[in-house]
Amino acid sequence: MRYVYFFADGHADGNKDMKHLLGGKGANLAEMTRVGLPVPPGFTITTEACRAYLREGHLPHGLREEVEQALRQLESVRGRRFGDPQDPLLVSVRSGAALSMPGMMDTILNLGFNDRTVTGLAAQARNPRFAYDCYRRFIQMYGGVVLRVPREHFEQRLQAKKRARGVSHDTELDADMLRELLHEYRAIVREHTGHDFPDDPQDQLWGAIEAVFRSWNTERAIHYRRVHRVPEDLGTAVNVQSMVFGNLGEDSATGVAFTRDPSTGEKRFFGEFLLNAQGEDVVAGIRDPLPIVALRERLPQAYEELVATCRRLEEHYRDLQDLEFTVEHSRLYMLQTRAGKRTAQAAVKIAVDLVDEGLITPREAVLRMAPEDLVHLLHRRIDPEAPVEELARGLPASPGAAAGRVVLDPDEAVGRAEVGDPVILVRQETSPDDFHGMVAAQAILTARGGMTSHAAVVARGMGKPCVVGAKDIDVDPSAQGFSIHGRLVAKGEWITVDGSEGRVLVGCVPTVEPQLSEEFHRLMSWADEFRRLGVRTNADTPEDARRGRAFGAEGIGLCRTEHMFFEGDRIDAVREMILAPDVEGRRRALAKIQPMQRADFEGIFEAMDGYPVTIRSLDPPLHEFLPADPREIESLAEKMGVTADHLRALVERLREANPMLGHRGCRLGLSHPEITEVQARAIFEAAVASQRRGVHVYPEIMIPLVGHVEELRRQREVIDRVAEEVFGETGERVQYWVGTMIELPRACVTADAIAEEAEFFSFGTNDLTQTVLGISRDDAGTFLPFYVETGIYGDDPFQTIDEEGVGRLVEIAVREGRSARQDLKVGICGEHGGDPRSVIFCHRIGLDYVSCSPYRVPVARLAAAHAALAEVGERIEAVAV
Amino acid sequence: MRYVYFFADGHADGNKDMKHLLGGKGANLAEMTRVGLPVPPGFTITTEACRAYLREGHLPHGLREEVEQALRQLESVRGRRFGDPQDPLLVSVRSGAALSMPGMMDTILNLGFNDRTVTGLAAQARNPRFAYDCYRRFIQMYGGVVLRVPREHFEQRLQAKKRARGVSHDTELDADMLRELLHEYRAIVREHTGHDFPDDPQDQLWGAIEAVFRSWNTERAIHYRRVHRVPEDLGTAVNVQSMVFGNLGEDSATGVAFTRDPSTGEKRFFGEFLLNAQGEDVVAGIRDPLPIVALRERLPQAYEELVATCRRLEEHYRDLQDLEFTVEHSRLYMLQTRAGKRTAQAAVKIAVDLVDEGLITPREAVLRMAPEDLVHLLHRRIDPEAPVEELARGLPASPGAAAGRVVLDPDEAVGRAEVGDPVILVRQETSPDDFHGMVAAQAILTARGGMTSHAAVVARGMGKPCVVGAKDIDVDPSAQGFSIHGRLVAKGEWITVDGSEGRVLVGCVPTVEPQLSEEFHRLMSWADEFRRLGVRTNADTPEDARRGRAFGAEGIGLCRTEHMFFEGDRIDAVREMILAPDVEGRRRALAKIQPMQRADFEGIFEAMDGYPVTIRSLDPPLHEFLPADPREIESLAEKMGVTADHLRALVERLREANPMLGHRGCRLGLSHPEITEVQARAIFEAAVASQRRGVHVYPEIMIPLVGHVEELRRQREVIDRVAEEVFGETGERVQYWVGTMIELPRACVTADAIAEEAEFFSFGTNDLTQTVLGISRDDAGTFLPFYVETGIYGDDPFQTIDEEGVGRLVEIAVREGRSARQDLKVGICGEHGGDPRSVIFCHRIGLDYVSCSPYRVPVARLAAAHAALAEVGERIEAVAV
Repeated sequence: MRYVYFFADGHADGNKDMKHLLGGKGANLAEMTRVGLPVPPGFTITTEACRAYLREGHLPHGLREEVEQALRQLESVRGRRFGDPQDPLLVSVRSGAALSMPGMMDTILNLGFNDRTVTGLAAQARNPRFAYDCYRRFIQMYGGVVLRVPREHFEQRLQAKKRARGVSHDTELDADMLRELLHEYRAIVREHTGHDFPDDPQDQLWGAIEAVFRSWNTERAIHYRRVHRVPEDLGTAVNVQSMVFGNLGEDSATGVAFTRDPSTGEKRFFGEFLLNAQGEDVVAGIRDPLPIVALRERLPQAYEELVATCRRLEEHYRDLQDLEFTVEHSRLYMLQTRAGKRTAQAAVKIAVDLVDEGLITPREAVLRMAPEDLVHLLHRRIDPEAPVEELARGLPASPGAAAGRVVLDPDEAVGRAEVGDPVILVRQETSPDDFHGMVAAQAILTARGGMTSHAAVVARGMGKPCVVGAKDIDVDPSAQGFSIHGRLVAKGEWITVDGSEGRVLVGCVPTVEPQLSEEFHRLMSWADEFRRLGVRTNADTPEDARRGRAFGAEGIGLCRTEHMFFEGDRIDAVREMILAPDVEGRRRALAKIQPMQRADFEGIFEAMDGYPVTIRSLDPPLHEFLPADPREIESLAEKMGVTADHLRALVERLREANPMLGHRGCRLGLSHPEITEVQARAIFEAAVASQRRGVHVYPEIMIPLVGHVEELRRQREVIDRVAEEVFGETGERVQYWVGTMIELPRACVTADAIAEEAEFFSFGTNDLTQTVLGISRDDAGTFLPFYVETGIYGDDPFQTIDEEGVGRLVEIAVREGRSARQDLKVGICGEHGGDPRSVIFCHRIGLDYVSCSPYRVPVARLAAAHAALAEVGERIEAVAV
Repeated sequence: MRYVYFFADGHADGNKDMKHLLGGKGANLAEMTRVGLPVPPGFTITTEACRAYLREGHLPHGLREEVEQALRQLESVRGRRFGDPQDPLLVSVRSGAALSMPGMMDTILNLGFNDRTVTGLAAQARNPRFAYDCYRRFIQMYGGVVLRVPREHFEQRLQAKKRARGVSHDTELDADMLRELLHEYRAIVREHTGHDFPDDPQDQLWGAIEAVFRSWNTERAIHYRRVHRVPEDLGTAVNVQSMVFGNLGEDSATGVAFTRDPSTGEKRFFGEFLLNAQGEDVVAGIRDPLPIVALRERLPQAYEELVATCRRLEEHYRDLQDLEFTVEHSRLYMLQTRAGKRTAQAAVKIAVDLVDEGLITPREAVLRMAPEDLVHLLHRRIDPEAPVEELARGLPASPGAAAGRVVLDPDEAVGRAEVGDPVILVRQETSPDDFHGMVAAQAILTARGGMTSHAAVVARGMGKPCVVGAKDIDVDPSAQGFSIHGRLVAKGEWITVDGSEGRVLVGCVPTVEPQLSEEFHRLMSWADEFRRLGVRTNADTPEDARRGRAFGAEGIGLCRTEHMFFEGDRIDAVREMILAPDVEGRRRALAKIQPMQRADFEGIFEAMDGYPVTIRSLDPPLHEFLPADPREIESLAEKMGVTADHLRALVERLREANPMLGHRGCRLGLSHPEITEVQARAIFEAAVASQRRGVHVYPEIMIPLVGHVEELRRQREVIDRVAEEVFGETGERVQYWVGTMIELPRACVTADAIAEEAEFFSFGTNDLTQTVLGISRDDAGTFLPFYVETGIYGDDPFQTIDEEGVGRLVEIAVREGRSARQDLKVGICGEHGGDPRSVIFCHRIGLDYVSCSPYRVPVARLAAAHAALAEVGERIEAVAV
């Protein structure tokens, strides 16, 4: 087992493909050395050493010897000795895991100082101030990071010193002052650790190495890994590199650069630097860095070399590079290169440009784009130029940004919206009663609820910006506004909701329209070539259907018909139906809605001309159509001409202990077949009318909540009968399909029987997750976040499909369903249909399509391409956005 | 294909084992003929002929010829010809399926009459009145049954004739009067059918045969088969037999007899008869029949022959026989023999006596007893001697009988019960809020709800008589009583609830204690020898535990701990815990309950000395411990020293949309580990204390609602830690087991992972049925009865396990669980554990035990024996009770 990999002067033991062993930084230092770039020599201690250290609690056997040997080799190539009082070798120590990971120890510079070596360096550099400043920086960094002395102690002492000396900048402190400060720093260390600052460079080095190892397990690092699903056992590498100094005077500098603009993707050299500085000064913000072009004037030779190096690195790595450099006495050194983080917009442009430049293939371009990142391109966002004042933070429940006036009441939202006033609906939390208000609002903000709360789910479905769980706001019960940290935001005031970032901003902040670039469309068309999985959209209206189609949907996978019962005056007829004493009365009431529904379906068929449209029959329980509030009941009773007592009794009778598991879905269609009849008639009449107008219609009628094949068989009978009636009356036939939503475990394990009656299955994984896990989405807020945070579930199962549990049942259902009907069409229409990892799962188990909200269609298309490419062995290596 | 089986004079084509083909009646007629008993000759048309007829819509090819040939043979052995005007052969036509089945056509006697043959018979019998009376009976029977003339028309005419002639009994009508009546009867037939009564005996015979065939599909027969799960395609046989006459004078008679007392099982000859009568007269109740012993005086020779025949038949069939006989001119004829219906008590006694008599083996005795029938023996019942007046009918939700005073309010029930007043709680329907009232009541009566309503489930669990869904009663909202058919039953009035029969009786009817006979215990001990499946009881209290053990339970399969939080003052501490602002406050509150819980567990361990006790940690959501009613909230707030607003907000925050899928079970234990700690401490302290007193304790701690192995792992950590604490403190160790309740589909499909942490699984099939089917038991009343009635589900899945759906997942879980842990103990503790068919399923899939309410333990023991015997090829042929 070899633990140490050396690199110097064009030769390196490692290379760029050894990230797992050497970390990203170490692998790239080796690679840059190999290709002849000016990299300060050094060595990398492997992640395996870190793993062994954490496993065994001490340095692994043999590591000490290997490091000592590498150090001797480094002394040899640098011609300096570590700890030499005359001409000391100084090193930097940096962590570097295979994946970039905040929370771990970052960097120790200038390691190797003590009271003797500092004088050697001062003499060598002929610059005592420089030497003492480096020494001061070292103790400050090492004391804080390795010895865990709170950093503010050093900082306070530094400020005091400057005050005492009447200077305002660090650089104004001369060598003597720094010497005094060093003395004080060492006292601070002694006071806080009970030990003297280690003077032996060997002790310093091992202290730093072990600190890097241990930093793998800081709380912040663990949390980061959990959230980002980074395996716990990767470990970090340690890079020990001989120092080069950007703070040796005006011919020295340090900086960072990007090979292209990481914000727009434009092909222009981009970066900034500080003259006479060490890397930490850029971070500290003591001086304003200069734009990279200024380097051309200051250090033209180094600049030209840097430009050439950038070009070379980009061609070598075939991607946008983010690099760190130091110029020491006009000589350029490369300290790091890595794939640069970029905006989603830049990611798309760069990927497509690189294809055009012949550097990568379309396949690689597709694989580099993380599907989730596309979301940023598909919604309005805060104008990046606009100044903003943050009012509150919450969860980014539904992306996009919108400004409007605060309203607290859904009816008021409708009223204001009708007169053209943009409104933001602000609620403690939302319920189905608020639906009309949400439709009217530009965006939704709630004080309670998680990513799967009612507000979040509905807003995502509607593609409206939404921030939920903004815990600091408190909606005033007297409905005059909401308060935050004692400040009242009155109703009528302007606020802006940034659902992409989970921010609430003061006032009306300008937003910018998403511009789907030429590059975006090219990238998506490549994705479409690779994918096998179909992508449809969930759409309940012609408008949604058109939007989904514009985003590339190949049909509707779920058209809910509930809103066709809620909208406008229709609710009156629905309530009349519920109140009717017999089936004839119900039929009369339903007959009033039927023509409106037919018109709805015609609009949808037209928008989806040539593509299949899956229409789900009525799903919610009847009590959702009645008010629950006593006053509303009274006023409705008056309107309907019944007594309030009668209506109250009806509401009470329809009330359910667990509506999720109650009298809904096909159970409603079976007990009230007239509802299914009316819906089927509206669909077939619309289909016939559309077909006569030349529209190509492919209606698929979907029966929800089937648990037993017999339920489907009987609903199917009703549909087939109505179809024949309509075809007989109109003299025109339309081809249609009948299938079912698989959303109950029983449906999964009896899928073979159900497939005898179903031409297609569509997995309703929202409800299936609820029943398989026994978790009510509406109530999960009290424990599911805790479950996800503490790792009981790795992911929120309502966001990413629970493969072990729900997924297993889906697989059983697909297998059994196809065993009974070979050409069974199988899709998914839960929210998981727009989640990239769930899409990959759907591909793997052989579904025919996924369906998701219009705004997630591109996400699903790209994820489906990734899934197909992964299948043929391609590695998905999306760049960081 | 042969359709007709002949029997006459000691020779028969069929035998008793051909029930499927010849029906029960036909097979036994053949058998009796074979063994030389005096059976009137005849023939049986097979069930296959019936099936063919129903399938094809006409008589099967060849049947007509076979019947004609059999008829000629019958004419030959009887020496009379069918339709002969001089000496006509008359026949009876009877249906007879493989299983006794009400609703089908029963009997046509005297077939073969017309105006010519009647004179022949009159001359032959030298008794014109007899002949005309037979003819009259024939037209009446045939007219009603075959020609479907409403029977009351004949009856009215008969009464009118008697009035006109000034006589009061049928027998007082002479031949002339009967001739007149015949004329009128024929007119009635003509009027109602548009045709003359068929005079051709051949036409009569075929009419009767086809009527029997068609009667297989009457509505009542179909309903009966659906309810009793008789296959639709069995079909019925038709028995055509030459007539013998019990109405030929005082030396003739007809009657029925049982070889033992069908009510008590005593070995005494039992039955009744009528002199000078035909079978229908017994049914019609025109004359009071005489006890069978009277036959000894009247017709001693026939009596002796009958006694000998009975003995012979019982020995031959090795069971209680129910037989029909006719004596014609002192000569005995046997018309039917079959296994006699008997009470459950008689069934047990007869089975055991037959073993003692060497007629059957213990194995056969066990197989003959239907497990469900045992229920009748285990509860108090209405004194069979007491006169009763029925007030209302409902569903027999929980067996047993009890009298008490009507109360409508659960608090009042508690109050009255405390002063020693027996009460019956009468509610529109019950909810968890009524629990204390149900505990206090002798029995429960509800106007609404089905067999799986809250009242039904809770009452069965408590073993209290309960009638639910008594639709005709209406509970007065002003709570003064309940009304039924306009009559008010005031609160305080006595009523009696018969939960076994679903009856509500007026006043205080005496009830009798169940006496478990010596024979019962012998039969159960035989069952125990055969069964492999263990049987435990569900018991929450020492009293329940003792009762279960008395009924043969081998441990507790489910000890719910909820009541330990609800009882008496404990609820105050629980509420204090819920209101506590932090974990320390919660711990303090819980500490108050802990000693009481320890005492509870000690009592239970003692009652179950030597047997395992499975204790489930707290399952219900916290809101169940808080009131929902605004007034109750106010009074509780005052008691707890908090503001009503605060408490209201808390209640509101804990409210759940779907509590069944909410924050309960192990989710509670994970978010509030202090609850699990306190429970574990109470269990281990009790176990240590009991063990020190010499009690053998086998505690099994069960974590509910586990969906992910990680939940179990973390709860297990708490339990193991507390165990070590207690063992350390007391210096005594107790062996214990930790397992989980499998009640979520996710647990089933990830059972292999879960079994890594679980030493046992117990299937909570109540909740598993809810999640697998997506049906809330509390809400299913609005559609599940409709589903079961219309055959979507063959059975109520909450009563008998849904093998296809829930059962499939149980099988997966057992297989996967055992694959990970070979010695995993697996049981079931849902209500299905006491349902015979579900028990058989549990045996078949290899569970280790079932657990059920104490009163169903014997049922489960017997069902388990049946399951084991069925496995080795024994046929379960339980006698009819």
